[in-house]
Amino acid sequence: MLGPGPSNVPPRIQAAGGRPLIGHMHPEIFQIMDDIKLGIQYAFQTRNSLTLAISGSGHCAMEAAFFNSLEPGETVLIAVKGIWGERAADICERIGAVVHRLVKSPGESFTLEEVEQGLAKHKPVLFFITHGESSSGVAQPLDGLGNLCHRYDCLLLVDSVASLGGVPIFMDQQEIDILYSGSQKVLNAPPGTAPISFSEKAQKKIFRRKTKPPSLYVDMGWLSNYWGCDGKSRMYHHTGPITNFFSLREGLAMLAEQGLENSWKLHKENALYLYEGLEKLGLKLYVKDEAIRLPTVTTVEVPQGYEWKDITAFLMKNYSIEIAGGLGPSAGKVLRIGLMGYNSTKANVDLVLVALKDALQQCHKNKI
Amino acid sequence: MLGPGPSNVPPRIQAAGGRPLIGHMHPEIFQIMDDIKLGIQYAFQTRNSLTLAISGSGHCAMEAAFFNSLEPGETVLIAVKGIWGERAADICERIGAVVHRLVKSPGESFTLEEVEQGLAKHKPVLFFITHGESSSGVAQPLDGLGNLCHRYDCLLLVDSVASLGGVPIFMDQQEIDILYSGSQKVLNAPPGTAPISFSEKAQKKIFRRKTKPPSLYVDMGWLSNYWGCDGKSRMYHHTGPITNFFSLREGLAMLAEQGLENSWKLHKENALYLYEGLEKLGLKLYVKDEAIRLPTVTTVEVPQGYEWKDITAFLMKNYSIEIAGGLGPSAGKVLRIGLMGYNSTKANVDLVLVALKDALQQCHKNKI
Repeated sequence: MLGPGPSNVPPRIQAAGGRPLIGHMHPEIFQIMDDIKLGIQYAFQTRNSLTLAISGSGHCAMEAAFFNSLEPGETVLIAVKGIWGERAADICERIGAVVHRLVKSPGESFTLEEVEQGLAKHKPVLFFITHGESSSGVAQPLDGLGNLCHRYDCLLLVDSVASLGGVPIFMDQQEIDILYSGSQKVLNAPPGTAPISFSEKAQKKIFRRKTKPPSLYVDMGWLSNYWGCDGKSRMYHHTGPITNFFSLREGLAMLAEQGLENSWKLHKENALYLYEGLEKLGLKLYVKDEAIRLPTVTTVEVPQGYEWKDITAFLMKNYSIEIAGGLGPSAGKVLRIGLMGYNSTKANVDLVLVALKDALQQCHKNKI
Repeated sequence: MLGPGPSNVPPRIQAAGGRPLIGHMHPEIFQIMDDIKLGIQYAFQTRNSLTLAISGSGHCAMEAAFFNSLEPGETVLIAVKGIWGERAADICERIGAVVHRLVKSPGESFTLEEVEQGLAKHKPVLFFITHGESSSGVAQPLDGLGNLCHRYDCLLLVDSVASLGGVPIFMDQQEIDILYSGSQKVLNAPPGTAPISFSEKAQKKIFRRKTKPPSLYVDMGWLSNYWGCDGKSRMYHHTGPITNFFSLREGLAMLAEQGLENSWKLHKENALYLYEGLEKLGLKLYVKDEAIRLPTVTTVEVPQGYEWKDITAFLMKNYSIEIAGGLGPSAGKVLRIGLMGYNSTKANVDLVLVALKDALQQCHKNKI
């Protein structure tokens, strides 16, 4: 699976997920949850006490972030440069927030100046931006954003589902207030859990809100207790996805053993190696600015004379390789190749290049 | 694990969950999702087209049920006879519904007359009741409730998390409009997915609502498409918990192979065998009316001179058996013994009785 996720699960994580179930309130599972918390703190580079995994997909974590930090009638600013911003805006509208959008073409990123204009104009309490925009293949630069938001008395919320572990991110240093990710990308665990963390500033806002969050399932008051973040004795809230916790802990452990710096370097190197190979095949990278290319998900323009579906189907049929077409604003325009965690290897790059070369020869429309 | 859930996972389901991951948009996973749909239709005894599994725990399915079927300002009536009714009322208040409660002591069930009085008085659009109240050990009789609700132009929503597969339920015949359950009880799959189904009447209400549901993650418009229930081509919505789908399918397949009637019979027989053994030990069953005892979760009064925590800890330490204390209104008053699916065997009953006998000798307060 070399699409934008889920990525393949390495044997060690597979084995962890296959361990016999234990109870959701046993001391052993609390220890595992504590390990997960430490693993997320490392991966996020944060010391936030309110750090845990949501019992759902990355999408569920996105809702958890907004459901807890935003109240009806409050103003939120959403940076839209692909599908994730659109989804975020949809969620905020459901909350009853006043939603403003800051829009860019897919394939581009936002500058600090553009964000500052938006903050000055709309005066939001919360600003959302996607770090790894997997629909367009862009890695949004984050430096300075947190400080900027705080100067405008606004919280910074970042989606790192497709980037965590593959692109440097420093939650505390970059002053990110809310950060979430997913289990099935660089962490190589099966989908079903989603790391999330809240800064002191974010916690203050969350725990002083006037209304209850719309969801009890992802209410941070409850989850904070269930995850042992509030220092009180743990009460039953819901039954967590126990086997997914086993896998997530193993994924986080593998990332910690490898080291974040090594993981970032590896993803960068293999992405550069892929770009070089793609250009040799005469293919064009969708993101023109090299500096903002997302190393975990590479977007390639669908070459003239080809249908993207013919190419992805050819790769699946003849090479058992999954790559994907576009999503949302990039639908029909690009092919997306994912190199995440365990899948980010030179051998996989070589394989996908051989397969693509074959596809370019076999899938031309005139030929059919 | 002989508590109120999760239950132990049999080797066959364990093996299914340990299969290598596949993509969330592969034809193979769609086939698996279709199988799950058929399995749920059988377990629920329904032909509803809108039948699927939520990517979260039973708690998440409870929210999905209310989030889709209830709009702000609408009136809902909640039968409260344990923790689940309380949770349901909390969720409805967050939605902004007008919430009325019909309250009974834990250990009792509602009569049709009591429900009718509530419907006549409050004129709700939706009535919620728990089938298997795992906090008190009560199985609520369901016959006639659907018809009654429909005469009052009200939808019937039933929680069967702790009862499905262990106690007869006939969604279509009993005119239940919304029914949900969990994966980790009688179905013996790991927690993380939750079956749910909507009648034609419920679908009409859901798809004609004026406001969007508060959650995008469990929005049935989206999920209906993702699960191939709407006849249109499937679009990406979120990344489902793929390995949990493997396990859930296997759990549903095992239930279908065994046959619902056999499963109901087995749960009943083993529960009766447990009751007999408990009474021989001098213990008292918490639910006095035999007819409404829940065969999947048996509640026993904490005997005088004992602390429930001493007994559960003793069983865990000396027998590696998990049983639980009370929950919500039954906290401190009862011990809860679960016999669900694979765990519902005479051998397990014998084991827990031997362990309890030992505990009664060792854990008396005067002894310590």
